[in-house]
Amino acid sequence: VRAWDPDSGVLEQAISWHEHDLAAEDDSGTRVRSLTAAASLEQAVGDADYVQESGPERLDVKREIYALLDRAAPDAAVLASSTSAIDMSSIAQGLAGAPRCIVAHPVNPPHVVPVVEVCAGQATSQDTVLRTMGFLREVGQSPLLLARYIPGFVVNRLQMALLREALSLLDGGVASADAIDAAVRDGLGLRWAIMGPFAVANTNADGGAREYLTRYGPSITYLMGDLGASPVLDAAFIERVGRATDALEHGASRTDLREWRDRLVRGIVALKADDPHPGTGG
Amino acid sequence: VRAWDPDSGVLEQAISWHEHDLAAEDDSGTRVRSLTAAASLEQAVGDADYVQESGPERLDVKREIYALLDRAAPDAAVLASSTSAIDMSSIAQGLAGAPRCIVAHPVNPPHVVPVVEVCAGQATSQDTVLRTMGFLREVGQSPLLLARYIPGFVVNRLQMALLREALSLLDGGVASADAIDAAVRDGLGLRWAIMGPFAVANTNADGGAREYLTRYGPSITYLMGDLGASPVLDAAFIERVGRATDALEHGASRTDLREWRDRLVRGIVALKADDPHPGTGG
Repeated sequence: VRAWDPDSGVLEQAISWHEHDLAAEDDSGTRVRSLTAAASLEQAVGDADYVQESGPERLDVKREIYALLDRAAPDAAVLASSTSAIDMSSIAQGLAGAPRCIVAHPVNPPHVVPVVEVCAGQATSQDTVLRTMGFLREVGQSPLLLARYIPGFVVNRLQMALLREALSLLDGGVASADAIDAAVRDGLGLRWAIMGPFAVANTNADGGAREYLTRYGPSITYLMGDLGASPVLDAAFIERVGRATDALEHGASRTDLREWRDRLVRGIVALKADDPHPGTGG
Repeated sequence: VRAWDPDSGVLEQAISWHEHDLAAEDDSGTRVRSLTAAASLEQAVGDADYVQESGPERLDVKREIYALLDRAAPDAAVLASSTSAIDMSSIAQGLAGAPRCIVAHPVNPPHVVPVVEVCAGQATSQDTVLRTMGFLREVGQSPLLLARYIPGFVVNRLQMALLREALSLLDGGVASADAIDAAVRDGLGLRWAIMGPFAVANTNADGGAREYLTRYGPSITYLMGDLGASPVLDAAFIERVGRATDALEHGASRTDLREWRDRLVRGIVALKADDPHPGTGG
């Protein structure tokens, strides 16, 4: 893998961060073994099969980058964007190579989380979709395909749905940030690391999701209609959340917290790989 | 621990299920070792320190049960309800022992998920709150305390927030149920097994939650306002979800899926116990 950034300091930082990460104990075995710095964008992508663009989240900048990439990369290369917000239809508009351009949005922290959201633009070819899905699977990621563009794609919409209710519960004085977090980290999140909301619904009643949605339908519909609105993210509310999250750190540094998170995510991924879904690998 | 149910068949089933579960390989070490069947409600609670009531989710039935429990249990015993929906203020209204009545709502699957939501009623004493929190911690659960009653408490509101957006994305044809589930099980859920939404926000930006909510504030506010409404849970939509979740089973039985889920939840809980939060136990 060859990396490039217009700022050579950032590029060096990325390479040394990767070396540090490679030295981490728990190894799920799917990491990039060789990452080198390229001297230019042209050298980085000149004989690439697959390009992962992670530039600034601004449409004008992305359009500029894609014009460069489309000239510099071999015709057969896929040009994938890490954007978490922008529609590939807008980025690749009018570009000769638009059929090979696609969104492949990794999820934070991307070096340990397997999922990548794949979303085609209007001009993206089916071949590009299939090659992107295949490539990502091959390098140990879990690509998921969107049928169409939507703001926030799937991952950030689901994340914002949970965050909105969490912020609303804090704002309404229902529980502390620590208690709300505990509901997830020691409760719901333990299932969600294994099963998404559909599989959870399907195991929550003896008759599966049909029984769950029928038997509890009235309560589910009531609660869904009763969920909170988004609090206004003004300075006072942000400071209130800031103080609550300071307390959640219990004095640990952000670096320590992130390394701890990464170790545990790798551990959970390894646990799941050793004990696969009973219908597909068990 | 003594268990009682008015239906002796159900009681026998519970005892034998518990024996089967005790025999499961992965043992987190916090299980009830001795569970016996009581011959009557009075015998079950006659010298109890703590009573966990898990009767039907109907206010009239709960009120009847609490009248019996309040007579049969020693004055010092806590009377905790597993209700996932009913306010203890309503259940214990007019009851002499109302100060010792409290909600302690376990999360499915309760034999492996540590979290228990604790919610006082208007008449619940502070002593009952403290004793309930202490007892639950002592037996290896992770109690979280609500400051006040709200429909669905915290856990089911957060669960419904995620489910609503998931159902809305399926309904809108944005992605398949499997892709939406993958966003959680191979993405967001891996973090949520470790950190709730507040701790996630606090690690998602170098400057913590303050920077996250400031820098991404406009996108967060936009997405929170753009989230989908609840689809109508009519027969056609339920059948559509049912077919999608049938496919997620990949031929495995619900029993196998639940045992697999329980093994992995126990594995994740053990992983976390071995590598605690760097600020509290690391």
